[in-house]
Amino acid sequence: MPNYAVGHKTPDSDSICSAIALSYLKTTLGEETVPARLGELSPETLFILDKFGFEQPELKTSFAGEGIYIVDHSDRIQGPDDIDEATILGIIDHHKLGDITTSTPLEIWVRPVGCTNTIIKMMYDFYDVEIPKNIAGAMMCAILSDTVIFKSPTCTTADIKCVEALAEIAGISDAKALGMEMFAVKSAVLGTPIRDLVLRDFKDFNMHGNLVGIGQLEVLDLAIFDDMKLELFADIAKLKAEGNRHTVLLLLTDIMKEGSEMLVISDNADLTEKAYGKTLVDGKVWLDGVLSRKKQVVPPLQDSLA
Amino acid sequence: MPNYAVGHKTPDSDSICSAIALSYLKTTLGEETVPARLGELSPETLFILDKFGFEQPELKTSFAGEGIYIVDHSDRIQGPDDIDEATILGIIDHHKLGDITTSTPLEIWVRPVGCTNTIIKMMYDFYDVEIPKNIAGAMMCAILSDTVIFKSPTCTTADIKCVEALAEIAGISDAKALGMEMFAVKSAVLGTPIRDLVLRDFKDFNMHGNLVGIGQLEVLDLAIFDDMKLELFADIAKLKAEGNRHTVLLLLTDIMKEGSEMLVISDNADLTEKAYGKTLVDGKVWLDGVLSRKKQVVPPLQDSLA
Repeated sequence: MPNYAVGHKTPDSDSICSAIALSYLKTTLGEETVPARLGELSPETLFILDKFGFEQPELKTSFAGEGIYIVDHSDRIQGPDDIDEATILGIIDHHKLGDITTSTPLEIWVRPVGCTNTIIKMMYDFYDVEIPKNIAGAMMCAILSDTVIFKSPTCTTADIKCVEALAEIAGISDAKALGMEMFAVKSAVLGTPIRDLVLRDFKDFNMHGNLVGIGQLEVLDLAIFDDMKLELFADIAKLKAEGNRHTVLLLLTDIMKEGSEMLVISDNADLTEKAYGKTLVDGKVWLDGVLSRKKQVVPPLQDSLA
Repeated sequence: MPNYAVGHKTPDSDSICSAIALSYLKTTLGEETVPARLGELSPETLFILDKFGFEQPELKTSFAGEGIYIVDHSDRIQGPDDIDEATILGIIDHHKLGDITTSTPLEIWVRPVGCTNTIIKMMYDFYDVEIPKNIAGAMMCAILSDTVIFKSPTCTTADIKCVEALAEIAGISDAKALGMEMFAVKSAVLGTPIRDLVLRDFKDFNMHGNLVGIGQLEVLDLAIFDDMKLELFADIAKLKAEGNRHTVLLLLTDIMKEGSEMLVISDNADLTEKAYGKTLVDGKVWLDGVLSRKKQVVPPLQDSLA
C-alpha cells in the first residue's frame, strides 16, 4: 500500500506541485508515495501540469488507515476530513503552525519562505536526489505563483535562488516571462461561474473559535472585476451563511499595482478597522502593498480576534 | 534584545544541550540567541555541563514579548507558561507533534529520530557551520542519554552516525564508555528526596482531555529502588491529587535488563490492560523491552484514552 502526499482543500499550484515533487522524492528514497488532491484544479495549475506533461493527481478525499504526507498546510480544517484516522508521516509547509497534532513522531520541514516547493528543493538537496527536469519546472512555477513573481512580501532570497536553480535544471531561460504567462492564464476570469471564482483559492481558518473564510484572486488588472462586484458580494454573503462563518473575505489582488481590494462580509462591522486600520466603504477597502494572505492578511486579523 | 532557546519543563540533558547547541548556531548565523532552562538540572545534565566546561543556562520561565526557539517538545503544557505571549521563531523536536500553534510562519525541524541533538547536527550541516569541540561533546552525550546508549527503540541509524561524527569532533575515543559513566551518575539515586526523584524526568500530557503525568528513572540496576517503592507510590499518589491528574505513571527503567517497571496511580483501574495488555499487580507491572516513554508508553496510552 503506497503512502500519499496531499495538499490543502481547494488546491493551488503549490499544493499540487509540492505533492508531486515530494512523492517522487519519497518514492526514489524507497517509500512508495502517490500525489493526491482534495478538489478541482485551477486554470493556473492545469496550465503548469500541461506545460510539463503531468496528469492531474488522483482525486482522493478519504485517507482513513493510510500513511500521508501533508503539504502546504498544517491546519486541520484545510486538510482531509478524516485526517484523524490517517497516520501523518510528515508535514512540509511554509505557513504559521496550525492545529494538526499526531500520536507518533514524524518528519516536519517548515520554513518561513514563500513557497512549499522551496522547502521541497531543500529536501532534495538534503537527501541528495536529482530533480527530474519536468518536476523542476513544475516546482519553479509554483514558487513563481506563490511569490507573485517575487513581488510578495513572503518572498525570500531562498525562493529567488531556488527558482534560479530550478530554471537551470528545467532548461528554462526566462523564468519571469513564464511567470507572466501563468498569471495571464490566472487572470482570465470572465465566463467562469461566480462560485467557482470565489472558491478558486479559498481557505477557512479557525481564529480563536471564529470560522473565517478568505478567498484570493490574483490578476494582472483589477478592472476585470468591475462588472462583477455585486455578484461577488452576493456570493460571499451566501458562502458566509452556508458555512455558518463569522467572516468571509475576498481579496482581489492586482499584482501590477501591488495591492488588494478586500470585499468583506462579517459579523464585526469594525473588522477591517481593528485588523488593518482601514474603514470599510460600501463593504470594500483598498489595502495598498497587500499581496499576501498568509503574511499580511491572516496574522493581524487573527490577533484582532483574540 | 537576544532571542532564547528553551527546552521543556523539568529539563533533561537533551533539552539543555540542544538549547546550548542551537543558540551557538543561531548566534553564529547572526541572530543572537541565548539558552535558557525552565527548571533545575539533573545530576546527569550537571555531569555533562561540567565535563565540557559549560555554565548552567539562565533559569528563565517567562518569555512574554520575546522571540523563542522551542527545543525538544511541541506540547504547550511542557513549555513556558506564557508561551502565548512570546513569538515562536522555531521548533526543533523529535516527539509527536503537539498542540503548539503560531500566528506567523516559522522554522520547524522535526524528525523521527532518537534525540533533538541529532537534528541540531543536521542544522549545523545544512547551514555549514562548524561545531565547536565542547558543544559536540555535549550534543553527543545528550544523544547517548536519549537513546540509552543506542538500546532504545527510538534510536535510529542517524543517531548512531551522529554520535560517531560528534565523538570525532570532540576528540572522544570511546563514546559508549562515556555513556556508561553518565548512566552511573544517573543511577545514584540514594539520598535524593523522593519528590526530586519523581520529578527528575517528569512530563505532563494532555491526552484527549485527561491530564497524564509520566515520570521516568533510568538506572543500571532496578534493585536500587527495592527499599523505596512504598515512598515512590505515596509520592505519585500525592502528585496525582495535587495536579488534579487523571493518571500518574512512574517508569523505573533498567537499561541493562532492557525493560521498565511501571508504577501506576490512575482513575482507570484497567489502564495498563487497555494500553499495554498487562494487568497491574499491587499497582505495578513489568514491561519487557520498554525503554522509551515517547515511543512505547505514550502512543498506546493516548490511543486507549481516545
